[in-house]
This record gives sequence, structure tokens and C-alpha cells, in this order.
Amino acid sequence: MRTREMTHSVAYLHDDENDIRVPVTRIALTNSPNGEENAPFDTYRTEGPGGDPVRGISREREAWIRERGDTEEYDGRPRNLQDDGRSAARRGAASAEWQGETFRPRRSLDGRTVTQMHYARQGIITQEMRYVALREGCDVELVRSELAAGRAIIPLNVNHPEAEPMIIGKAFLVKINANIGNSAVTSSIAEEVDKLSWATTWGADTVMDLSTGDDIHTTREWIVRNSPVPIGTVPIYQALEKVDGEAHRLTWEIFRDTVIEQCEQGVDYMTIHAGVLLRYVPLTAERVTGIVSRGGSIMAGWCLAHHQENFLYTHFDELCEIFARYDVSFSLGDGLRPGSTADANDEAQFAELDTLAELTHRAWEYDVQVMVEGPGHVPLHLVRENVERQQELCSGAPFYTLGPLVTDVAPGYDHITSAIGATEIARYGTAMLCYVTPKEHLGLPNRDDVKTGVITYKIAAHAADLAKGHPGAHERDDALSKARFEFRWRDQFALSLDPDTAEDFHDETLPAEPAKTAHFCSMCGPKFCSMRISQDIRDRFGNAEEQEAIVEMRRKSEEFVASGATVYLDEPRVRV
Amino acid sequence: MRTREMTHSVAYLHDDENDIRVPVTRIALTNSPNGEENAPFDTYRTEGPGGDPVRGISREREAWIRERGDTEEYDGRPRNLQDDGRSAARRGAASAEWQGETFRPRRSLDGRTVTQMHYARQGIITQEMRYVALREGCDVELVRSELAAGRAIIPLNVNHPEAEPMIIGKAFLVKINANIGNSAVTSSIAEEVDKLSWATTWGADTVMDLSTGDDIHTTREWIVRNSPVPIGTVPIYQALEKVDGEAHRLTWEIFRDTVIEQCEQGVDYMTIHAGVLLRYVPLTAERVTGIVSRGGSIMAGWCLAHHQENFLYTHFDELCEIFARYDVSFSLGDGLRPGSTADANDEAQFAELDTLAELTHRAWEYDVQVMVEGPGHVPLHLVRENVERQQELCSGAPFYTLGPLVTDVAPGYDHITSAIGATEIARYGTAMLCYVTPKEHLGLPNRDDVKTGVITYKIAAHAADLAKGHPGAHERDDALSKARFEFRWRDQFALSLDPDTAEDFHDETLPAEPAKTAHFCSMCGPKFCSMRISQDIRDRFGNAEEQEAIVEMRRKSEEFVASGATVYLDEPRVRV
Repeated sequence: MRTREMTHSVAYLHDDENDIRVPVTRIALTNSPNGEENAPFDTYRTEGPGGDPVRGISREREAWIRERGDTEEYDGRPRNLQDDGRSAARRGAASAEWQGETFRPRRSLDGRTVTQMHYARQGIITQEMRYVALREGCDVELVRSELAAGRAIIPLNVNHPEAEPMIIGKAFLVKINANIGNSAVTSSIAEEVDKLSWATTWGADTVMDLSTGDDIHTTREWIVRNSPVPIGTVPIYQALEKVDGEAHRLTWEIFRDTVIEQCEQGVDYMTIHAGVLLRYVPLTAERVTGIVSRGGSIMAGWCLAHHQENFLYTHFDELCEIFARYDVSFSLGDGLRPGSTADANDEAQFAELDTLAELTHRAWEYDVQVMVEGPGHVPLHLVRENVERQQELCSGAPFYTLGPLVTDVAPGYDHITSAIGATEIARYGTAMLCYVTPKEHLGLPNRDDVKTGVITYKIAAHAADLAKGHPGAHERDDALSKARFEFRWRDQFALSLDPDTAEDFHDETLPAEPAKTAHFCSMCGPKFCSMRISQDIRDRFGNAEEQEAIVEMRRKSEEFVASGATVYLDEPRVRV
Repeated sequence: MRTREMTHSVAYLHDDENDIRVPVTRIALTNSPNGEENAPFDTYRTEGPGGDPVRGISREREAWIRERGDTEEYDGRPRNLQDDGRSAARRGAASAEWQGETFRPRRSLDGRTVTQMHYARQGIITQEMRYVALREGCDVELVRSELAAGRAIIPLNVNHPEAEPMIIGKAFLVKINANIGNSAVTSSIAEEVDKLSWATTWGADTVMDLSTGDDIHTTREWIVRNSPVPIGTVPIYQALEKVDGEAHRLTWEIFRDTVIEQCEQGVDYMTIHAGVLLRYVPLTAERVTGIVSRGGSIMAGWCLAHHQENFLYTHFDELCEIFARYDVSFSLGDGLRPGSTADANDEAQFAELDTLAELTHRAWEYDVQVMVEGPGHVPLHLVRENVERQQELCSGAPFYTLGPLVTDVAPGYDHITSAIGATEIARYGTAMLCYVTPKEHLGLPNRDDVKTGVITYKIAAHAADLAKGHPGAHERDDALSKARFEFRWRDQFALSLDPDTAEDFHDETLPAEPAKTAHFCSMCGPKFCSMRISQDIRDRFGNAEEQEAIVEMRRKSEEFVASGATVYLDEPRVRV
């Protein structure tokens, strides 16, 4: 039996007064060799309740939404095969129609705003706020005040009651997003739903469905109904499918309808490339890699074709009005992000950021939650400027970055090149990191790539939490290090971000079961084991008698330094 | 045929005046779609000349050493089966005796110092200095002056004429080291020699042989005779084997003889844990992970057993005298480095660093080259202090660090946790990074792990070079980004640090040969391709007519901002 199966279970944090429980992963630990008991270690859990993907997961949050009494059910847009692309329209069905229950969509009553930001600004503490406070281990007033100030968001569409509330903001744990989604070239609905649960199993805090191929609507239905984490999308991808991929045929009306379609399905946040202004487009012409954002290039293409301003910008207020009725959060897209280190921090990028700052403040006028997307490819010494500039211009709105990749020369390893930049940018205040998988630039991630991307980004996020001194972040490190030092191999595996891989690697060299409790490992063998030797040192200095010896040695050492630091040892000329 | 085989070849940089040639890897590139020719890209090469491992590689540098006339051949220590451990002694042979030619060892004439530092301080420009200047693309005077000041080293034993000169110092390209070596538990000589060439194929600048098991002497002979890069060792490992692994039985004499044995074989630098002083040992007793350096714990154990000062410290001057005769460089070991983030930057660690600084200056009195080893496990916000403190205390002596790992929670992924810290520490002046493989803490690296470790550390080193603004470092990034933007897939693979993996990943989704020249890829499919759209933008703004349009648009944009930045678009309230 694998370590993870033996040691990991679900437990709950309770707020009985408010009838809230938050699932955590409980990791059972063994005793130390000296008999000391090691309490089980509870850790943040994104896996959700699980269940049969054909039916979707439970809608825990529905009662909270209903009880607030500020929303209504309505009929919504009728099913439209066009939403699934041309092949579905031809066939008369999506390739795998949603088989679970369908729910009538919900929106705010006329004239009401139902965003968490709105409640927070009214001084209202919602169940969602209490949930995330319990989950983060912080005071609920911190949650409310950060939401009210726009420095944090709880991305939760009223039509996605399956999702467990989570918060994105620099005062909280750094979060990570995993991208999934099919494309015209590859992958099926079942694969994408599997990637969703695989991503949340390993710790993805949100998932973006970036599908661009067939069956977009239905793929998203499967994903939202099965997702315990907020789902993000880039609606322009689907809108483009509706005009046969011809960017110049896009219109505000087609886009708006697509956004409403996705609001009704329960998408929690949407990337909107409203900062790609017509006048910025020429700034990219002399770049090494032009525009590399899909959404950015679509909108740039549209602006040029019509020689008109970006309709996402000119209709931004209407978008705010729509989002306010479902509590959909903006993820303001960085359509002009650098696609190579050569293009980092250039005029085009920062011009767009100025506009994203303007739009952030505009959305806040509608009490709509906002996060702002960031680069891309940036050499390490230019990373910090990105987050500090964004934080200042956008008055602390959460920054959500892709990497950044600190070098362009390692396709196949861009989870690593980007984790380096991600840790740096999160350390200075980025709230959520969009993962990059080993397949970046080369192909679509498969299941293994999704896991590698998620674990790599859990590392970056956690390393940033540690560097920020986030309360309690070091506890898992310390627990694992203690287990390592005490040769509690199983506990070391169990506490690691990926127990399966840790165990497999160990077993490659020393597979036998007794090696799991051996007081040495394959790297050095028993006699060379530094851990063993230094345990001996501790044992020696650990008892009362030896404690005195330590004090004495320290005293002597201080005397010695104070006396001018010349020592007679074997050789008189030794100086300290 | 693989991209790498098709595009990579050896070429040479020439210094004809001095009869020096430096091999580089030449990467052939194709033309841009607009017909522009892309010159072949030359890059630093560590692979060496190759050849039959049974005979060893050519001894290119022998003539230079001989011509200086300050060394002599001598008989050296006789072959001693004990050097290969107890099993060899029992069997009467090592398990795979060296089969190539054996050479009489060489050392300086009595009273002469033959270190590159010595020559540099005399104002002498050696062939080795010219070689590295050509290799680094810098002025030879920079090389000489950095060597003279102790801020760089060329680790090259006179008994390792197979090695191609390379330089370690913060004014030069950041270097990486790969550790190999057998242990009592696993692996054979042939495997280790294979790991050596595999590591240098992918870019290891030096290799450390950390063998601790049987056949230590013979394994090392195979490695040194086949290595085009400097070889480092930790001689205390072999010395400990000679006393059956019982640390308290170690003596200075046994250690000294082991060092001389390795000097005669051609080891280029040796880790010496001379900073683990008796009075520092108790400082580790209350750490989460005590002492995690093997060498550190061996010496700590010895100090405690005898209640005497570390013999490496008390005999340090003798070591300097020995090293000066072979030009062996010190790698002053950090025996008290932190083994967990909890223990980072603590009293024990920094006390030892003070002593390493003292020893650095002492070695320089003998004109012996020195680098200083560093941690370990350090959370990201504490990394920079490590290198800045070392650089100040050690007057700029090269810093050589293991990672550091910025979190303890990801065994199985410690190449990544450590690459994050490695990039940060190199950015602020660390000269060489010791790789960490995915097997760190779990097992001995196999061939794949060696490659993953090397590529990951090439990323860290290169990202640091970029962040430091090292001259020319960005050229490879820019060439690859240009290839990417122009859909020159083969060129993108060829320019990447690991062409094989980049190609394999691409081919997983789009294997057909035409896809290598397709103007899109599997991530988005043809219609969504941002690269294609933004090429169109460039084409549009790339001709003379459109250049004018750019100028006009920029002018308008400036006018517009200057005029108070209120724009009438579809909606009058839009403000910029």
C-alpha cells in the first residue's frame, strides 16, 4: 500500500456557530525514535468531495446564496448547438452531452449587486468570508477588509455552488492556477475532466478551461459541474469559434452573449483583454516576439482590421454590469505581455498595464472583483518591478502572473524556468501563479504534465509564502525536516508535496520494506550517514550533563575571541 | 534523424599566435521565412574530445606544463590495494582495474609554486589563461587580474592534463558542477564513467567524484583519465574508508597520504572541511537537522571523540604546501551548512564561514587557489545575505553553493526547489552552482537524473548570467525567441538546452514531419495562433508605408494624452 493511501485522510475544520466546515488533508505521523508523539499534520485541501463525474459534485454553497434573498432563478439562454462549434451544429449534438442534472441559472434581482466585494463594502460578513477565514486560519475581518479594499477576491459565481470558497490576495496564502482545455488538434471531454480532478488532487486552487476546439460549451459544463475550485475562462476563445475563427467578424454582441452564456454556466472569473488598445498595437511591431497572448493578438487583429478601439474597452462598463449580477470576477488579461526576455518591461507592456489600472478602478465602481494578469518572459532582475508597479498602479488589486520565465532557452523545462520567476514575483506580492507545464511552447499538457506543473507551482507558491514569513508557512517544512532527521521515511514521504514520487525514488535504490525505517539511506550507506553522526552529537549534548559542557565551551570560545584570538594548537601560527 | 545530430557540430575558436584552439558547439540554423540568413550559433562546450573510455582522452595540456620547466616527474606512492578499500585488498584487485596507460605523477620542483594564482601574481600570462579568455570571450588581462586577486580560480592539477582550462569567478559565466560517484550500496565504475560523459555532454563545467564505496581509487582513475573538465573530490571520504568507516580512528597522517594519492592522480580541487571547529559543534545541537554534511559530521565526530581541534584546521598550512606543488585548489567545505530552512543563516553556519574566510586568506599566502562552499537549505529571503556575507568576508573568493533549496517540502523535486535558490544566489555573485538532482534526499542519481540535474542547473546559471547582464548572455535567448516567432521549429529545438526533449515533446502531439515547419502548433491550432496573428501585424507595420502609419498613430496617441486624455469612443464616459 502506498504511503499516501496509508497516511492521508480528510478531516474538517469547524465553525459550529455558523454551520461551516472546511475540509483539510490530515497527514498521520508516527512517533519519534525517542517516543515523542508527532501530532497529525493538517494541510490546505483543494481536492473537493469527489464523486461520479457523470453527475457532478454536491452543491454545498447553494443554500447560502438562496438565503441571502438577493438572487432569482430564470430561464437563461436556450441551448444552442452553435455554442459547441460547427461540428456539433452539423452533428446535432456535442460529442458527449452533459448527462447530469441541469439547473436553471441564477442572477441578482434587478438592480442588486451580489459580489463579495459589495457585501464586504457594506460591512456584511458572508458565509463565504467565514469559510475562507477558517481555511486560511485568519481573522474574518482581515478577509472582509481586504475584499472591501479590492486587495483580495473570492471568485465565486452564484451559478457555481459546487465550488469551495477560496481567496486570492497577497495577505493570504499564494495560490496557483492550472490551465486545462482541449484544442482543435487534440484531446476529449473525458480527458479534460480527468485533468481537472488530477490538478485539484495535487493542489490547484483554481482551474482555467482554455478550450478552443469543438464542444466548448459542453466541455465547460462537465468541468464546472465537477469542479470544487473556481473556474476561469477566456471567453474570446469561444466567441472566435462562433465566427469561424475570423477575428475581424467578432462583434460586441457576439462577445456579450458568450459572456452571459458562461455566466449562466457558472464560470467564476473571466480573462478580458480590454487593455489592448488600438494605439498600443504598433508598439509591438519591433519586438522580438510581437504579441504572444492569443486573446491579445485576436483583439489586436480586430482593432487593426476595423481601425477602431477594442470593443472590450469601449463596452467595459456593460461587462461590469453583467459581472455584478453573477459575481463573476475580472481577470484583466495582459494581451501585450512579453513573449521573450528581450521584450520584457517594454513600452507596450507597461502601456497596457496603465490601462488595466484604469479598468481596475472602473470595475470597483461597480463593486466587481478584479485581479490583473501579468507576464510572461522576464529576466530575473526585471521581475520585481512588474509586481511593484502593478501593485502601485492598481491600488493593490491581486496580481495573477504566468511564471514569468526567466530565460527562453529551455523549452521542455519551462515549468522550471518559470517557477524561478514565479517564486520571485510571488515573494514581492503576486497573489496567484498560473502554472506552466513542461509542454509549454511545445504541445498540450497531458495528465503527467498537469501534475508536474501543479507540484512545481506548489513549490513556488510555498517558497514565496516562506519568504514572506506567512504565518505558519514554515510548519510543514519543519515537520518534514524533523522526520528526515529522525529517519522517519514514511513521514517524510507523507509530508512531501508529492508522496508518490518521493516514495518511488526512494524505493528505486532501496526497495525493501525495512529500508523505510533504516537509519541511513542509499546516498551514503550506513557508515557515512551524517544524519546518524549528528544524531549522536545531539544525544551527547542533549542531556543535562552535556548541556553544561555546551555552556562551558561557549564561554571558553567567547573568552578566547575576547582575548585577541590567537590559539596554540598543534601549530603556533594558527590565527582565528 | 534527431535535430541535435543534424544541427550540432564541433568548431574551434583560434588564438593562432599562441597555438590555442577552444572547441565550441556550433548550431546550424536555417533562414528566416523572409529569406534572411541566420548565422550559425556558437556556444560554450564542455563535452571534450571523447574517445574510448578504456584508454582515456588526449592529454592536450601536457606540453604547456612541461614547457614551463618548473615541474618534475617522480615515482609517486606505490599502488596500494588498501586505497580501493577492504574488498579490493581481500580480492587482491579492484573490481575493474584501470586499463589505459599509467603516467608517472608530476609535482613542482622543490621550492617552486606552480599554481595559476602564483603565475598571475607574478604578472605571467599562461596558456591556460589565454585559453579561458578565448573561451569566455574576454580580455586575458581580466583573467589574470581576477586570478591574482583570488576572485577567480582555474582548477587544474598538473596531473590532469586531459582537462580543458576553465575559470570559476563572478566576472565570468556562472558554472555548474555535477556530482557522481558510487556508494557502498550501489553502482559500478562503468556507470560512473558513463555519468561523467553524460554530465559533460549536457554542460557540466566540473564533476565531483563523491564515491564512498569500494574501488574508490580505481573509480577515480577512470574518471580523471576520461574527464575533459576539472574533477573535485572530498578526500575525507576515502580516508574514512581506510579506517573502516570509524571516524575516531582518522589521523592527519592517513588524511595527508590520501590527499597526496589524489594529487598524484590529478584531482583538481578538493573539499576540505577545515572550518568545523570543536567549539562550533555544540552550536548545532539544537538545530532541527543538526549537521547534514557528511564531511562536516565526520570531522565533528572526530573532534568530539578526541576533544581536540579539527586536524584539517591545525594542519591547514601543510595542506597549502602540498596543494601548491600540484596546483590543487581548495574548495573550503561548509560542514555546518543548514540541512533545513529552519536552520538557515544560524550561528553555527556563520561561525564556520568566519573560519573559512580566515583559511581563504591563509591559502592565498601560499598562492593556493581557493573557492568557498555554501548552503544548503535557505528560504528565499535569506539567500542573498549568504553570498554577500561570503564575498565580503572572503574578499571576493569564488562562492560555490549547493542550491540552496528554498523549501524542504518537495523531496523528488529538489532540483527545482534548489534551482530557485541557485538562480538567486548566482545573481548576486555566486560563481559556481553544485547541481541537485531529483533524487536528492532519496537515492543516488541515475543517468536520467544526472541529465535533469545538469539541464536544471544550466537554466539557473544562464538565468543568473542574464540577470547579471553578462555580456552576450542574452544572445541565445534572442536567437531562440526569433526562431520561435518565425516557426522555425528545428532551430528552436536546436538552440534549446536540451534539443532532444524539446523535439520529443513537440512530436508527442504533432509528430508528422510537416509539423516541424507548420506555422502553428498543437497548443492553439492554426486559427488561434497568436504568433501568426502578430506576424501579420509586423508584416503590416514592417513596410515603409505602414511605418508612416505607426509614426502617425504614435503622434496622435501623444497628442491625445497631452490634451487631457478624454476620448469619445462608443461611450462618452471612457477615460484614459
